[in-house]
Amino acid sequence: MAEDDQGALPPKGDFSGWYNELLWRAEIMDVRYPVKGLYVWYPFGFSLRRNVYDMLRSLLDRDHQEALFPLLIPEQELAKEAEHIKGFEDEVYWVTHGGLSPLDVKLALRPTSECAIYPMYALWVRSHADLPLKIYQIVNAFRYETKHTRPLIRLREITSFKEAHTVHTTWEDAERQVETAISLYMEFYDRLCIPVIISKRPEWDKFPGGDYTIAVDTVMPDGRTLQIGTVHHLGDHFSRTFQITYEDVDGEQKFAHQTCYGISERSIAALISMHGDDRGLILPPGPAPVQAVIIPITIGKRKEEVSGAAAAIEKEMVASGFRVKVDTRDLRPGAKYYYWEMRGVPLRIEIGPRDIDAGQVTAVTRLGQKTQVPRDRLLEGVRDLFSSYSAQLKERAEEHVRTHIHISRSMDEVADAVEDGVTLVSWCGNKECADLIEEKTRAEVLGTEVRSAYLVDAGESCVVCGKPGTTALVGRSY
Amino acid sequence: MAEDDQGALPPKGDFSGWYNELLWRAEIMDVRYPVKGLYVWYPFGFSLRRNVYDMLRSLLDRDHQEALFPLLIPEQELAKEAEHIKGFEDEVYWVTHGGLSPLDVKLALRPTSECAIYPMYALWVRSHADLPLKIYQIVNAFRYETKHTRPLIRLREITSFKEAHTVHTTWEDAERQVETAISLYMEFYDRLCIPVIISKRPEWDKFPGGDYTIAVDTVMPDGRTLQIGTVHHLGDHFSRTFQITYEDVDGEQKFAHQTCYGISERSIAALISMHGDDRGLILPPGPAPVQAVIIPITIGKRKEEVSGAAAAIEKEMVASGFRVKVDTRDLRPGAKYYYWEMRGVPLRIEIGPRDIDAGQVTAVTRLGQKTQVPRDRLLEGVRDLFSSYSAQLKERAEEHVRTHIHISRSMDEVADAVEDGVTLVSWCGNKECADLIEEKTRAEVLGTEVRSAYLVDAGESCVVCGKPGTTALVGRSY
Repeated sequence: MAEDDQGALPPKGDFSGWYNELLWRAEIMDVRYPVKGLYVWYPFGFSLRRNVYDMLRSLLDRDHQEALFPLLIPEQELAKEAEHIKGFEDEVYWVTHGGLSPLDVKLALRPTSECAIYPMYALWVRSHADLPLKIYQIVNAFRYETKHTRPLIRLREITSFKEAHTVHTTWEDAERQVETAISLYMEFYDRLCIPVIISKRPEWDKFPGGDYTIAVDTVMPDGRTLQIGTVHHLGDHFSRTFQITYEDVDGEQKFAHQTCYGISERSIAALISMHGDDRGLILPPGPAPVQAVIIPITIGKRKEEVSGAAAAIEKEMVASGFRVKVDTRDLRPGAKYYYWEMRGVPLRIEIGPRDIDAGQVTAVTRLGQKTQVPRDRLLEGVRDLFSSYSAQLKERAEEHVRTHIHISRSMDEVADAVEDGVTLVSWCGNKECADLIEEKTRAEVLGTEVRSAYLVDAGESCVVCGKPGTTALVGRSY
Repeated sequence: MAEDDQGALPPKGDFSGWYNELLWRAEIMDVRYPVKGLYVWYPFGFSLRRNVYDMLRSLLDRDHQEALFPLLIPEQELAKEAEHIKGFEDEVYWVTHGGLSPLDVKLALRPTSECAIYPMYALWVRSHADLPLKIYQIVNAFRYETKHTRPLIRLREITSFKEAHTVHTTWEDAERQVETAISLYMEFYDRLCIPVIISKRPEWDKFPGGDYTIAVDTVMPDGRTLQIGTVHHLGDHFSRTFQITYEDVDGEQKFAHQTCYGISERSIAALISMHGDDRGLILPPGPAPVQAVIIPITIGKRKEEVSGAAAAIEKEMVASGFRVKVDTRDLRPGAKYYYWEMRGVPLRIEIGPRDIDAGQVTAVTRLGQKTQVPRDRLLEGVRDLFSSYSAQLKERAEEHVRTHIHISRSMDEVADAVEDGVTLVSWCGNKECADLIEEKTRAEVLGTEVRSAYLVDAGESCVVCGKPGTTALVGRSY
């Protein structure tokens, strides 16, 4: 459906150009929808989304339940939590008319669902025996973004918002849930071979109405960070507002404590951006819509025999649960390679007369590793290749992040570092110092209590004022 | 989460009371959301929805692709097709503000997605080689309903709208797709054990902007019909409006022909209503969130042995792909039976000391059939029970529909028949006669070219005017 252009992508070094063009060439998103900030998922992109979100679902289903709450939130509910509404009022879409008549009560399109879900939780939670309650939903959410919009990253309709909302008896139990959610998100990104950095957002950047926010960031190819998950400890702010109380073992009515945490299609933006190269997408086998493509090499006379062999391989692999396609189109092999490389297919299996005679197939991973696999151990061979390919993908991604994390002990070093990636600094915790960093380097203090596989101590004196500080993550973010 | 009330449901004879109360007692929907016509899916209900829609997806995935288009449709796109906008303008929700500022262009919440999808199809379709194009999406859609709203049946947010949109070279090819879609929907409802009646809606009741509409109806417990699927031949109306053209083999640019067809959560309303009884839901094994519940009967001393046996059965069944739960709660068996019967679980497996000694389990289907199944052929035994239980469910449902379809050869007979169900009449095709039927009986002419397993010829003279007529379906609908 995208035009079948054979031209080259812009090089990945021109990240923005590369990203935008890859999205339509690999048939992920069509950006030509006639409203700014709204995009269309092509079938191929949607298939990728399905696989990624099925993965997320399977992790959550271990001990969460999926439910579904309405999109429309009445104005009075949204306005109940004062800080929350303040945080969102500039970017809420309002429905004001039904048919030709004005509505009595304005309805917001959910920017996030606290105010849709918690009135129901107030009805559902009665006793300590009902807790913990752990529910999630996968929905569309809306933000009237005035900044530059970008597919999968900054949208007016977030089409794939996974939001979990939990209720607990105590603040400490909610805190443990925050940690559980972080582990869960780390596992999710590990399956996508995406390295992450965890940190606690500064006070002024936390979720409006919450106690604190832990964020999951990754480092994009251009060195900017992308927030790809957040976990919020809500304390009892919302439970007091929405009257979510439970009868404790001692018979007393108490306010519950809550958390919420979300992941959006930015997870897919990160997946695309982290692994792709100048020839297109590179996907891990887990989420890939097509895990292996079989290309019959039918030069000469043995065409039918080769087609038969290709079909037999497909049948065998599909029966073992692989997502496989045979490309029988009347195109030169080179054109087929181009097509499937653009779409990030992890493995290309070539089968021609010489392979048949040698009792083998030729397997080429999307990272270029070429192997002959004996036909009679094809399935194990493919499994082995997928596992070494995934390890390679992970190693490449870690290498990228590792080389883009710096340590800066002076403002000059910060300024240099954020041209290339992120940096760790020592920071005293005062907003004035963070503001100065931003003013001088156009980079923000993203978080403290940094957790990453690459962490190095950034020293003890605040990089701005020299007072005692702790390690903070600084970078430019999407 | 719903209150754990042990009281009885209203009898199913009081269908409306039964339906409303069953929805929350079986934890399908919570109707207490603070906006009229919007409801909340409980986790149990959502799990049922997941299974039903996974079933629908698997049928569509045979030769359709899933995609995703935006919710918001700009006013000028929605207004392009004159009849279409006329059909929907009274019930469209309008977004008029983003944050605190009015929008330049009003945005409609999709009532259905022709006007969101077809501008993209105009870009995607180039040549006859791109056709047929068959895409579907599962989304929320909105109707500002002014009539009485009812969960799953008449909503302001349709949460589960599966809409397919196909493009073809010729009118005839689109007509064949209409037939394919009808077969697909019949297969879907057959898997849910729901008998359907297919008919062609009268001209004035077709999809706004289409050529003709084929509807899928079922007969609810109170004899009223529920439309649970529609298939529309759109001709080239929309392709002319949205300029969806293709280059034909002869090199000429031609307008494409289109169809669209949809199913909503009414499919779940029908599933609940058709099979349930005075004790609650009755679900076929296919969509049931829990297919079998294991109740350890631990009277006396052999408690641990029984618990172990129950856990072993669960493990064995889960490994074979069954959705199973052991109910280990500290409740009397009777209370557990009540609980799981309310939730429609197809099979209850009781295991106690005597069963262990006899090398068996006691299996009771939700329709009350009690069997001893030898422990060593448990899996085959369960499979056999599921298959006879499904056949029984289907037979019950068919019996219900069969006994509520009548033949009427006079207006008096029509008036009597529609008090109990639907009726077939001979009708000349004129709106005046249909209006008279409605005026006298408060029942509508639902369709012609009726296809059902129970069809009997209704004679040749229009039941109103006596002129030549053909068989039409008449009933009161939701």
